[in-house]
Amino acid sequence: MEQSPLASRVSAIQWRNGILRLLDQRRLPDEERYLEIESARGVAEAIRHMVVRGAPAIGIAAAYGVVLAARHRMQQDRGSWKERIEADFRLLADARPTAVNLAWALRRMRAAVDAAEGDVLNRLQAEARAIHREDMEANMALAEAGAALIAPGSRVLTHCNTGALATGGYGTALGVIRTAWAQERLEAVYATETRPWLQGARLTAWELDRDGIPATLIVDSAAGRVMARPGIDWVIVGADRIAANGDVANKIGTYGLAVLARAHGARVMVAAPSSTLDPDIATGDGIEIENRDPGEVWGISGDGAPPEGISVENPAFDVTPADWIDAIVTENGVVESPGKAGLSALLAKVSRTVA
Amino acid sequence: MEQSPLASRVSAIQWRNGILRLLDQRRLPDEERYLEIESARGVAEAIRHMVVRGAPAIGIAAAYGVVLAARHRMQQDRGSWKERIEADFRLLADARPTAVNLAWALRRMRAAVDAAEGDVLNRLQAEARAIHREDMEANMALAEAGAALIAPGSRVLTHCNTGALATGGYGTALGVIRTAWAQERLEAVYATETRPWLQGARLTAWELDRDGIPATLIVDSAAGRVMARPGIDWVIVGADRIAANGDVANKIGTYGLAVLARAHGARVMVAAPSSTLDPDIATGDGIEIENRDPGEVWGISGDGAPPEGISVENPAFDVTPADWIDAIVTENGVVESPGKAGLSALLAKVSRTVA
Repeated sequence: MEQSPLASRVSAIQWRNGILRLLDQRRLPDEERYLEIESARGVAEAIRHMVVRGAPAIGIAAAYGVVLAARHRMQQDRGSWKERIEADFRLLADARPTAVNLAWALRRMRAAVDAAEGDVLNRLQAEARAIHREDMEANMALAEAGAALIAPGSRVLTHCNTGALATGGYGTALGVIRTAWAQERLEAVYATETRPWLQGARLTAWELDRDGIPATLIVDSAAGRVMARPGIDWVIVGADRIAANGDVANKIGTYGLAVLARAHGARVMVAAPSSTLDPDIATGDGIEIENRDPGEVWGISGDGAPPEGISVENPAFDVTPADWIDAIVTENGVVESPGKAGLSALLAKVSRTVA
Repeated sequence: MEQSPLASRVSAIQWRNGILRLLDQRRLPDEERYLEIESARGVAEAIRHMVVRGAPAIGIAAAYGVVLAARHRMQQDRGSWKERIEADFRLLADARPTAVNLAWALRRMRAAVDAAEGDVLNRLQAEARAIHREDMEANMALAEAGAALIAPGSRVLTHCNTGALATGGYGTALGVIRTAWAQERLEAVYATETRPWLQGARLTAWELDRDGIPATLIVDSAAGRVMARPGIDWVIVGADRIAANGDVANKIGTYGLAVLARAHGARVMVAAPSSTLDPDIATGDGIEIENRDPGEVWGISGDGAPPEGISVENPAFDVTPADWIDAIVTENGVVESPGKAGLSALLAKVSRTVA
């Protein structure tokens, strides 16, 4: 019997006996090692230092971080824990700025804190688990919706890692690719290595290999050559934040891939759970782009610091205008040509779903 | 007194007392170490393994390699050295396939071998030195011509390394940038790190720092973001081979930068000595693109080999069609809009110059 692509999925975020276990993604693919985290501060550090990364995964980890924080604050003082946990919310919210899923998950956990009575810890734990489970369910649904757009025989290219490691456990863009592969729609899968963190080379290649999906790894700058020949039908990426007009913040390089796709007649699919939508930000101009440590770039080039006169810019994300995107795929529906269609119908549906 | 940008130039290819000294570019910027090479085989290995790289520099090194070969073959047998050196020519010619400067320099050296009488070694050495010196002179001339195209206050982006390390000693694209900087035309210089070999991060940054030209280093895939904002006026690159119609083979990623430039109103300048022109190849389709070891890509991602199901493609170059290029700058003249203008006038002038 064929192994299902789901059978080999990794569970990178685990909640066991009141402890958060995170697969340390900095060590992949050489080593599969879990860190056990028992405090909100530990979760914030794990997010900041990319033990866990990927917009949906960050949100899930932060939700469990609130459970850890609540337990600690209640142990400190049962009377004032709801005030004292505010510091933990801030700590978690500040861990990384661009992915909106973090703020979204913390809003849900705050509502759970505000409403909490009786066995509070169990209720918070149940809410974090719900966020985790719902993300995986959203992945499965959006993967189906995305795969349906892909004609059999298609050649696809993906950027960064958007798989089980980046989400609750299946994947957004990589979930689409998994499902499309299972449905025998894919002729070729290309993965960019995704500098500076190499999520494509270290994580996406690792996931695809575990699933038995053959793929070709290229340096980021080879994407143009691949699009020119042999050609790509779909560029499929995730998102860290989607503005109300459909502009998408995602891993640095996404924008360039979208420009290349347009020049070559390839289409661009952004696959993300609805938690990635940010109705409060009108356009991509309003999205804060995280600039990370220059050492992430320079680290592979020389032993010491970069030359004195050279500055290193390390933006972790860029913004792709809605006009360059052919489809935004969520578990609540697909918006084709978001630059023309706009997201208002989708946003209205999502707000009804949440309400 | 201001230090001249020329004062700090590195001399990466040195011919001293009949020995070829090559600055080992694989060790930069951590270590400035020269290898001493005394055989054609040693030169071919140095080219293949990128001790020396950059199309013009490869040609110069190969020319000295012929001198070493001639000395060795004459020591073996004074009567048959001209037949026996054929094997050395083949070895050198096969070291790397894409840069035409290698074949060009070997053609010049073969003509010198064929014509050689009297103090043959001195004559061959003089020819290799002439190739070296003329390349530097061509660099200076084309740098002036390229800089003249750049309006004061311009922001430029360059890819790979095209400086003193890649040439006889000044640079093609980086030569244009050096001269434009000295003429106070540049507001900002961006350098891409240039995966997989990181020539931008390791070599271009090192050269710019030595010259006191402030620059910003980015990962290759951040070029789109930089072009969108704050914006770039000129993308300035070198070339490994220019077909008769103006199509340009250059470091992988050049094509993508040209597509991005067009989308953002930036212009694309290709700066190269006339030895990079290949009138025998009609279009870029005919240019052989070297595929290098997957380990060059994978090496920074994991300890062992890539996952079994993942193949790594590592094309070292791509081809940018003439239509995407705004100016081809050589020491024999500038062709603006080569896709429209064609290169026939330039090629005719070069063939007259050579004849």
